[in-house]
Amino acid sequence: MFGRSYYCGEITENQIGEVVILKGWVQRRRDLGGLIFIDLRDRSGIVQVVFSPESSKEALEIADKVRNEYVLDIKGKVVKRDESTVNENIATGKIEVQAQELTIINEAKTPPFVIEDQTEVSEDIRLKYRYMDLRRPVMFETFKMRHNVTKSIRQYLDEEGFIDVETPILTKSTPEGARDYLVPSRVHEGEFYALPQSPQLFKQLLMVSGFDRYYQIARCFRDEDLRADRQPEFTQVDIETSFMSQEDIMNMAEKMLKRVMKEVKGLDIQDSFPRMSYNEAMARFGSDKPDTRFAMELVDVSEVVKDSGFKVFASAVATGGQVKLINAKQASEKYSRKDIDGLTEFVARYGAKGLAWFKVEADGLKGPISKFFNEEEQAQITHAAEATEGDLLLFVADQKSVVADALGALRLKLGKELGLIDESLFNFLWVTDWPLLEYDENERRYHAAHHPFTMPVREDLDLFEEEPGKVRAQAYDIVLNGYELGGGSLRIFERDIQEKMFKALGFTGEEAKEQFGFLLEAFEYGTPPHGGIALGLDRMVMLLAGRSNLRDTIAFPKTASASCLLTDAPGEVSFDQLRELSLSLHVKKFD
Amino acid sequence: MFGRSYYCGEITENQIGEVVILKGWVQRRRDLGGLIFIDLRDRSGIVQVVFSPESSKEALEIADKVRNEYVLDIKGKVVKRDESTVNENIATGKIEVQAQELTIINEAKTPPFVIEDQTEVSEDIRLKYRYMDLRRPVMFETFKMRHNVTKSIRQYLDEEGFIDVETPILTKSTPEGARDYLVPSRVHEGEFYALPQSPQLFKQLLMVSGFDRYYQIARCFRDEDLRADRQPEFTQVDIETSFMSQEDIMNMAEKMLKRVMKEVKGLDIQDSFPRMSYNEAMARFGSDKPDTRFAMELVDVSEVVKDSGFKVFASAVATGGQVKLINAKQASEKYSRKDIDGLTEFVARYGAKGLAWFKVEADGLKGPISKFFNEEEQAQITHAAEATEGDLLLFVADQKSVVADALGALRLKLGKELGLIDESLFNFLWVTDWPLLEYDENERRYHAAHHPFTMPVREDLDLFEEEPGKVRAQAYDIVLNGYELGGGSLRIFERDIQEKMFKALGFTGEEAKEQFGFLLEAFEYGTPPHGGIALGLDRMVMLLAGRSNLRDTIAFPKTASASCLLTDAPGEVSFDQLRELSLSLHVKKFD
Repeated sequence: MFGRSYYCGEITENQIGEVVILKGWVQRRRDLGGLIFIDLRDRSGIVQVVFSPESSKEALEIADKVRNEYVLDIKGKVVKRDESTVNENIATGKIEVQAQELTIINEAKTPPFVIEDQTEVSEDIRLKYRYMDLRRPVMFETFKMRHNVTKSIRQYLDEEGFIDVETPILTKSTPEGARDYLVPSRVHEGEFYALPQSPQLFKQLLMVSGFDRYYQIARCFRDEDLRADRQPEFTQVDIETSFMSQEDIMNMAEKMLKRVMKEVKGLDIQDSFPRMSYNEAMARFGSDKPDTRFAMELVDVSEVVKDSGFKVFASAVATGGQVKLINAKQASEKYSRKDIDGLTEFVARYGAKGLAWFKVEADGLKGPISKFFNEEEQAQITHAAEATEGDLLLFVADQKSVVADALGALRLKLGKELGLIDESLFNFLWVTDWPLLEYDENERRYHAAHHPFTMPVREDLDLFEEEPGKVRAQAYDIVLNGYELGGGSLRIFERDIQEKMFKALGFTGEEAKEQFGFLLEAFEYGTPPHGGIALGLDRMVMLLAGRSNLRDTIAFPKTASASCLLTDAPGEVSFDQLRELSLSLHVKKFD
Repeated sequence: MFGRSYYCGEITENQIGEVVILKGWVQRRRDLGGLIFIDLRDRSGIVQVVFSPESSKEALEIADKVRNEYVLDIKGKVVKRDESTVNENIATGKIEVQAQELTIINEAKTPPFVIEDQTEVSEDIRLKYRYMDLRRPVMFETFKMRHNVTKSIRQYLDEEGFIDVETPILTKSTPEGARDYLVPSRVHEGEFYALPQSPQLFKQLLMVSGFDRYYQIARCFRDEDLRADRQPEFTQVDIETSFMSQEDIMNMAEKMLKRVMKEVKGLDIQDSFPRMSYNEAMARFGSDKPDTRFAMELVDVSEVVKDSGFKVFASAVATGGQVKLINAKQASEKYSRKDIDGLTEFVARYGAKGLAWFKVEADGLKGPISKFFNEEEQAQITHAAEATEGDLLLFVADQKSVVADALGALRLKLGKELGLIDESLFNFLWVTDWPLLEYDENERRYHAAHHPFTMPVREDLDLFEEEPGKVRAQAYDIVLNGYELGGGSLRIFERDIQEKMFKALGFTGEEAKEQFGFLLEAFEYGTPPHGGIALGLDRMVMLLAGRSNLRDTIAFPKTASASCLLTDAPGEVSFDQLRELSLSLHVKKFD
């Protein structure tokens, strides 16, 4: 009795009459009037096995000892179920297996939770027993989807001539956003590797090498605190090409994503993904990654209210700020004054000093501040907000960035609370025309918004001297349902533009050389125009699988709690290991 | 003028008459009687572009400025070459492109070496300018082959129901063979991650989770000195399955490798891979990874010479050792006495105290020791060695392991020197029936030959008490042309066998728990029988691509020399980074 004939979930009416050998785990066992029913589970699903007096006596005796999660080897005959016992909830519900022989391959302790999709158990316990948690069908399905996503991506990129090149995990530290993990080398005393935050420099070097089309499903690292939506190691679909325009790269990535949606979700997206400039996204949605599954856009009423009697609004506009509103359609009855106080506290987290509001009634706008607005102003607000009776209008007046942040976040919150989001939608959106440089108020200088090799829009090159903040980047983000799925840019490959860029960033030639010397040297030996894109795989899988937690897409995630998983938290090291590491450090004469 | 129409190497007679746009690098430029010829190169190959008075005047002027490795954008018409100028050496040799327009996209300094397959330049220089080195066609072809190898493996495994699961890079230290890289966490002070030497524990946990068929093309790490055939980070094709026998797993892996050979090398291997036990491999080839592309097997003549007058032989046998020979067919004339002295020095490196020899002549065996052997003994040696006139017989007499090491190495050396190896062959070989335990003479105890979870052969279980060294493992290595390509085993999943194993290794229950507690705990919740295999991808690509250096299969390898590449050696860290690391260490009160 060896050699599985089918996975449990694969047995259908086609196998009726066949003697099959199955291997799997006991989902549950029931005794019913002299019969023993075992639901046998493997990664494909569940099948019902019946032990009756027709089974061997030995098999019946063994079946009696079986408990949940025992591993079994079963031989039996597939038969049609009585009409009355058909189970429409499972794929194998029309048949059952009449057991002939049974072997217990391995026993199991009582599991800490039942292996089912719906579980009430805390995530801590699930992570402590991750190997049990991963037995839940929904978890296996998520990892199977992850497999299918990468398979689909790899096949598409292969067909398009991209080649998969592995770049190093042990590399040198280069200044990027987050903190690098450092790895002391015990062979080379006093020296350290860094783990890459992305393969950025390597993929650019591969373009210098003429590889032309590179991709990698690459592990990346950042030494940051754990958050619900962050892991210190994460995976990105990393792509770089030569001789392609921004348009070419966006089209290529869009075709790839459409193929994934088709092959993994069965969704045939015909239309081009919508595109929106960064400025438009901020203006309309208060976000650089708008969730376009619902409207409730931000409406600018600065012009309407700038001369109103409501000083808060008037002075916001007078000092260079804005007044914007969102219209929560038909939400007037749903939010009490107390609820609105709650919303005010919510926007305060984003820096808003207050939240003004009107309820739209048959005879006009009502609320504590309505007295400050004359009839015409009220009519203009009503018109601008496309307001009708029963709507709730919510206003923030502040500097542009505060208005965007506060109303952008409030919009998402209300969208969820009011059930405006169709969870079945997958709304992709390109956000383009990003600023190249960001001004740092504290350091009083510009930083690269993306990285110092991002190509500016050519027609903006003249702005470098006078208004560097207005130079746009040839950069693009792809957004899905309000999440940044990924982004990319064309890269600078010409020395004179690179020099303008470094100058704008306040780098001396020496500093640039020190930080990026290796790449700059490579650029002198015939660099092609190049650019690329990187997509967050973990997040993509999370969204496609309809999971709300990034950790559900990672087999062995890190958690903030201690020592409940191999990967859960960094472990302690032995005295010998520590001594060696310490020697490494002391070589550098560090006290 | 944008948008490439073809890669350079793709243009054939089919494109004659077509106007094409090409992008690429200047391989070389020649001026010939008012014409300028540019060989334009991209990753696909080279095409000849001609600038003549028919090109635009501007294009001719620009073409005059062009130097090697400049990046060009060329528009031109494909025409048939004159019969007299056809170049049969390149795929595009029957056509050329009559240039109409030319743009220099980027200039290049004079390259440090010419971009050609054959290069005289040192590997150090090649690595320093790796981005140039990777432009050599043979390098791109190697990475394209690497891509094709993994593509073929992924497709096969996907069809067989394996799913690709990523396991962590930042994990806990577990005692395995080599030294772990340790990664201090700056977020969790005083704690460390380790980089995995293999995903072994994780893949076994995935089997506990019922994932049934897992694979990963996984990066692994060991903190060791660099050698020509070792890299501190390397890639393995990592596979684990449940409910499969050793035979099933070997067949599955064999099918996979045959598919790779077919799809990547065009070789259709029909026969099953030969199999050989570890003992047989050691006896016949003096190696656990025999190169079976040539014979020259080891011949045991212990019985023949044990009573001979040659004391060295007789006493080797008397003290439990062996006398073995290899027959270098028709090599008698090729090796002078001085050459043989060289071979004696060579075997000394493997511990052999001497190298006895005969030259086979028409009238018998000749050499310094022939006088010690009577006629019958000489006849028996000749018979055993299948010796004929002109052969050279080389003997080592010593303990079994020294004889194997010394003659095994000598066999490979002579095989190469005598040109016995057909380099076009790909000889796969399974080596099975490995010992489970190895006796450590120094520590006077047994170690796990593979790892402590390797399943013993069931019929050997009774040997555990009396002769643990004779217990065989359900383990298998796959060998290709004398290289260990990979290996695997079934794993222990039953508690009683695991306890026997730990006892044989001299572990107390506490020690076992301390080292492998997490996995042992998981094993109590319903563990299926499981096993797997891991294959070294870097080495596989090296052998398939016919490269002699592992570094040629890795885009950015580590090298022993300093700072010539981003990954060349670990870099120094900044004072701030060092301070943080140091704080981490001091938390542990280490002085």
